Amino acid sequence: MANHRVVVVGSGFAGLQLVLDLKGAPADITLIDRRNHHLFQPLLYQVATTLLATSEIAWPVRRLFRDRPEVKTVLGDVVGVDRETKTVRLRDGGVIPYDTLVLATGARHAYFGHDEWEAFAPGLKTLEDATTIRRRVLLAFERAELETDPETRQAQLTFAIIGGGPTGVELAGIIAELAHRTLVDEFRSIDTRSARILLIEAGPRILPVFTPDMSDYGAKALTELGVTVRTGVPVTDISADGVRIGEEFVPARTVLWAAGVQASRAAEWLGAPADRAGRAIVEPDLTVAGAPDVFVIGDTASVTTADGKPVPGVAPAAKQQGAHVARIIRNRLTGKPAPGPFVYRHQGNLATIGRSRAVVDFGRIKLKGALAWWVWGIAHIYFLIGTRSRFAVAWSWLWIFMSGQHSARLITQKETLKD
Amino acid sequence: MANHRVVVVGSGFAGLQLVLDLKGAPADITLIDRRNHHLFQPLLYQVATTLLATSEIAWPVRRLFRDRPEVKTVLGDVVGVDRETKTVRLRDGGVIPYDTLVLATGARHAYFGHDEWEAFAPGLKTLEDATTIRRRVLLAFERAELETDPETRQAQLTFAIIGGGPTGVELAGIIAELAHRTLVDEFRSIDTRSARILLIEAGPRILPVFTPDMSDYGAKALTELGVTVRTGVPVTDISADGVRIGEEFVPARTVLWAAGVQASRAAEWLGAPADRAGRAIVEPDLTVAGAPDVFVIGDTASVTTADGKPVPGVAPAAKQQGAHVARIIRNRLTGKPAPGPFVYRHQGNLATIGRSRAVVDFGRIKLKGALAWWVWGIAHIYFLIGTRSRFAVAWSWLWIFMSGQHSARLITQKETLKD
Repeated sequence: MANHRVVVVGSGFAGLQLVLDLKGAPADITLIDRRNHHLFQPLLYQVATTLLATSEIAWPVRRLFRDRPEVKTVLGDVVGVDRETKTVRLRDGGVIPYDTLVLATGARHAYFGHDEWEAFAPGLKTLEDATTIRRRVLLAFERAELETDPETRQAQLTFAIIGGGPTGVELAGIIAELAHRTLVDEFRSIDTRSARILLIEAGPRILPVFTPDMSDYGAKALTELGVTVRTGVPVTDISADGVRIGEEFVPARTVLWAAGVQASRAAEWLGAPADRAGRAIVEPDLTVAGAPDVFVIGDTASVTTADGKPVPGVAPAAKQQGAHVARIIRNRLTGKPAPGPFVYRHQGNLATIGRSRAVVDFGRIKLKGALAWWVWGIAHIYFLIGTRSRFAVAWSWLWIFMSGQHSARLITQKETLKD
Repeated sequence: MANHRVVVVGSGFAGLQLVLDLKGAPADITLIDRRNHHLFQPLLYQVATTLLATSEIAWPVRRLFRDRPEVKTVLGDVVGVDRETKTVRLRDGGVIPYDTLVLATGARHAYFGHDEWEAFAPGLKTLEDATTIRRRVLLAFERAELETDPETRQAQLTFAIIGGGPTGVELAGIIAELAHRTLVDEFRSIDTRSARILLIEAGPRILPVFTPDMSDYGAKALTELGVTVRTGVPVTDISADGVRIGEEFVPARTVLWAAGVQASRAAEWLGAPADRAGRAIVEPDLTVAGAPDVFVIGDTASVTTADGKPVPGVAPAAKQQGAHVARIIRNRLTGKPAPGPFVYRHQGNLATIGRSRAVVDFGRIKLKGALAWWVWGIAHIYFLIGTRSRFAVAWSWLWIFMSGQHSARLITQKETLKD
């Protein structure tokens, strides 16, 4: 008899961990993703802000499993699941049968019903998003250098970042350092220090998953870097000219979105119940109700811990879910009893502020400032996949640290100017 | 009185060298380019073939001149020159006045009157060209992995490179190594070693600037890597399905163009005489006839050496022209006599074949094989601008050498698959 067929959709943290942990299990694994690479999303903001190159935080999935002949990597775009025939449908017409299906298709940014904002305020989920943001930020300075009208110039030098979570804080901090340090000597007509960086959070404080004390520290550290932190007022409109905060209109030619996510369509494909963010509501063992052979994990799953709290959409949670489902599948295939329900172990919250400070909350251990930044940096180097990337990122950071210069300041991807 | 205004268009090897060499001269310099980066073109093929990342071979121009307050960098697209009013016109309507103008706007690939081929056979001049080629090459293997029809699959695994100069040889060598070594263990449905890599040269031999002996060596080394070398037959048609070589049609889904260049429009802007490739024909001092204040240098200039030979379109020639014009301008501004006419000193020809062999021709010294590769590698590391890039590229090469793995294998820039 042929091996049990496990089909995994998505090679983010959840899907990758699952496949890694299924090593040696009697299963043929097909790993499908629209991209050819696994992306280390926690450092994506550094690509967007010229600190790292794309290839330093992404690796071809195929390469990661070259020594696992039972793993087949498919570059494909899933458009549906047929639970009757137990197949996954690809956009190009391909049909892939499964015995066990794991959907780990992640999330995209969401604009709370204002999809028209996306054109003016790009979010940060893919490598292309990151190079788009990098291009916009760098071009803003270039355009301001050539602008003669003072008002237009100020709008070009105003950067509004929407969303005060870790991503928004990280983007705002590095952009402020670009303007106030890195680029200062390079322009002749403008003083880049006159740039205005706004971090806008609708809630009462930034970094809401941290303690109020750490939020305060973060706001203070950002202010010192030159960021204007605005809390308690929602964004009511975004256009090509700027952003409306409550009633006030702020001219800003660069607006970045770090405010919300929407799950992928996994729940829709399955006809499964979903929460408001579109995440499939799963059973305690991460299966879909009534389908013990279908799992949903990672950012596209709505999982609740035993104490009724939602599991956050962070990399460690995704990896734990991938590991848990691998255990279930392996036990089923080898006739062992099922493990208990999924239990989320929170490892802590981390966020950096600029290039030398951070806040780290490991529960009992709480750190802020330079030491926290080192803890953050070492943790991220450690979790990077692949020896070379660890060295490459460490080297890039060391270089930036020593020279003060960013290395990935290229405007690419689209023609910067019309031919 | 205000300083003499030197306007330089183009930050390639010629323009960059000129501005570097004008250091300390009593002149205000404006350096205009459509891109924000100087590109180390001789290594561009390594970005196209997954060996290097974009940021390892390109640097923001602005950064290079941060310590030169008299140098103003402008990200702008020149659309014309008015010799009467001594101004340069930008696409956005900007007008930049000059006392001395230097056009160093380079060249693009040319399709010998078959512009319709460009869609099917991208050339290699910009970072975007390189990521486009990388995407096409990597996607070809991905598509073949999913294809069930053997004929279509073979067409997907056929790579035709047109043009047997150094760029064509370099592309063919690395693509062959990708197929025959790097990717071998990573696919499950295809044997990547069944890929066919064709190098097509209309002339009688590849690497025509080298000696016939070295051309033979190159062809033999390529054959050993798995490249089929076809010489003496021109390409007569290119379509989405493949390439016609003489009368024979070869199905090939990936066709790359390394066969010819066309100069930028500098000659047109000036109303200056041009050669067949569109290059402005210049005087022995690199000025345009009748305009001692306008210089044309680099790949967009047609320069003839004292013995009547054309100066080749290579980086050392461009740098020498930049240095020569800097000397002329400096002498004029400081009241010194003009230097003699431009004399080209040929430094040699280099080309790599795969990741471990090369041919090097320094005139009296001729090398082929592994030693030539080391000479080539050290020479290129040496000429890379910026300490960090030297280390980064050296490290990337060392990593590839030790691990056999390429580090920049990302499919990016456009969505790989439709959303």
